[in-house]
Amino acid sequence: MSSASLDNLAIHTITTKPWAIETAATKFAAAGVKGITVWRDTLNGRDIAKTGQLLRDQGLSIVSLCRGGFFPGATAADRAKALDDNRKAIAEAHALGAPLIVLVCGAVPGQPLTESRKQIQDGIAALLPDCTAANVKLAIEPLHPMYADSRSAVNTLGQANDMVEAIKSPLIGVAADVYHLWWDPALEQEIARCGRLKALFAYHVCDWRTPTIDLLNDRGLMGEGCIPLRQIRSWVEAAGFKGFNEVEVFSNRLWAMDQDEYLKRIVSAYSAHV
Amino acid sequence: MSSASLDNLAIHTITTKPWAIETAATKFAAAGVKGITVWRDTLNGRDIAKTGQLLRDQGLSIVSLCRGGFFPGATAADRAKALDDNRKAIAEAHALGAPLIVLVCGAVPGQPLTESRKQIQDGIAALLPDCTAANVKLAIEPLHPMYADSRSAVNTLGQANDMVEAIKSPLIGVAADVYHLWWDPALEQEIARCGRLKALFAYHVCDWRTPTIDLLNDRGLMGEGCIPLRQIRSWVEAAGFKGFNEVEVFSNRLWAMDQDEYLKRIVSAYSAHV
Repeated sequence: MSSASLDNLAIHTITTKPWAIETAATKFAAAGVKGITVWRDTLNGRDIAKTGQLLRDQGLSIVSLCRGGFFPGATAADRAKALDDNRKAIAEAHALGAPLIVLVCGAVPGQPLTESRKQIQDGIAALLPDCTAANVKLAIEPLHPMYADSRSAVNTLGQANDMVEAIKSPLIGVAADVYHLWWDPALEQEIARCGRLKALFAYHVCDWRTPTIDLLNDRGLMGEGCIPLRQIRSWVEAAGFKGFNEVEVFSNRLWAMDQDEYLKRIVSAYSAHV
Repeated sequence: MSSASLDNLAIHTITTKPWAIETAATKFAAAGVKGITVWRDTLNGRDIAKTGQLLRDQGLSIVSLCRGGFFPGATAADRAKALDDNRKAIAEAHALGAPLIVLVCGAVPGQPLTESRKQIQDGIAALLPDCTAANVKLAIEPLHPMYADSRSAVNTLGQANDMVEAIKSPLIGVAADVYHLWWDPALEQEIARCGRLKALFAYHVCDWRTPTIDLLNDRGLMGEGCIPLRQIRSWVEAAGFKGFNEVEVFSNRLWAMDQDEYLKRIVSAYSAHV
């Protein structure tokens, strides 16, 4: 399998967290990056519509807004508050010009996972009118099982596909992230199924390091770990995916390095390993 | 669901790692613990048969020896070395009087998981004559997906059951540990399947803390986390399991406390939460 096209390279703002979004946009564009996924915290204090225009003026496609979700709550009031925040995210995506919001679906420690999953599905369904009005899609991102306690009760692509099938809306799909999914023996078949559902909305890449020393912020740059990136991309493309390969890396180690140097490494790691 | 019987309480030597095995045996027995699972490192420098007798003299049932496995290797020589170590473990179990060895099956970072899984299955099959001769069983322990890089390519109970079915020997079964399996949406059905296969050889309990700050050594004592222990034990017992509930906790935090005090907490947490 050959290298992924640079035309499909997108980077998440969190990957180069030390940079303000304006800096990231300028640097990404100068490095030949074509797409950007915007984390909501980078929009704090900005005019969102103007920031969207600034990104497009740099020639960047806005791939998605990260993130909505966290639907489960112990009380109805908690769950209503979560819906309010998701509606705010939909409005932000609309203003920014992002066609998609990635959902980290949430979980409440100690609440049965089956209950959290039901609350997630109900929460997404409740947002459908807002999505239609704003023309914004939602992507369920299945999270690694090590986040099942508090971040997401949706932990496999199979579960995300099941939810997409149950909700049955062209606005609801999946964000597949190799970090969360690479270990799954059913991955190839579930990627194919996601393609048949026309629900494969986004594809995120990074790597899994050995040893991993932090559950959240020790992801590897592509090539630094054990994830079979070429193989997984071949499955994703066989499923009909033609979108961006989004580099999403949370790493205390990489955030601490010179970010210009890091961006060069991202681009070369993308060519060498994605 | 009522409390688990104290007659079914076993503790792994690693749970109270600061204690030598002789100390652990005396203390466990005095606390009313009925079973012990022995980690191999505690046998260093001991006469293994005499140590087994010492445990039995305290009235303890020897539940299993931890651990064999780590079958995958990049070269045939590595894999042969792994088999040698497993044969050594079988001899140790026989000398100790342990009827069962728990297998942490292994993985080689960057080697395809499918290849590691094949090497695991081949490795277990190669040990069958040794198991028969020593009258020692082997339990495949599916490990949490966060260990798929380097510790086990068997990450769900479904995969372990598949392997048991493929190997087809009454000597080969499964060790089900709530820490590794609790998140799995297929858990109830796979526990039932494991029971039908007569392959549910061991059941390990602890808890999952929020937040978990270390991938290896931050397990919780039962009740400190979010695992639905009573529910899972009900599934295990419905599947016909009548063995020990083995407390296996790796925790820098709990190893640092007074171990007599900790043992009291283990016994009360067992009654309150398992």
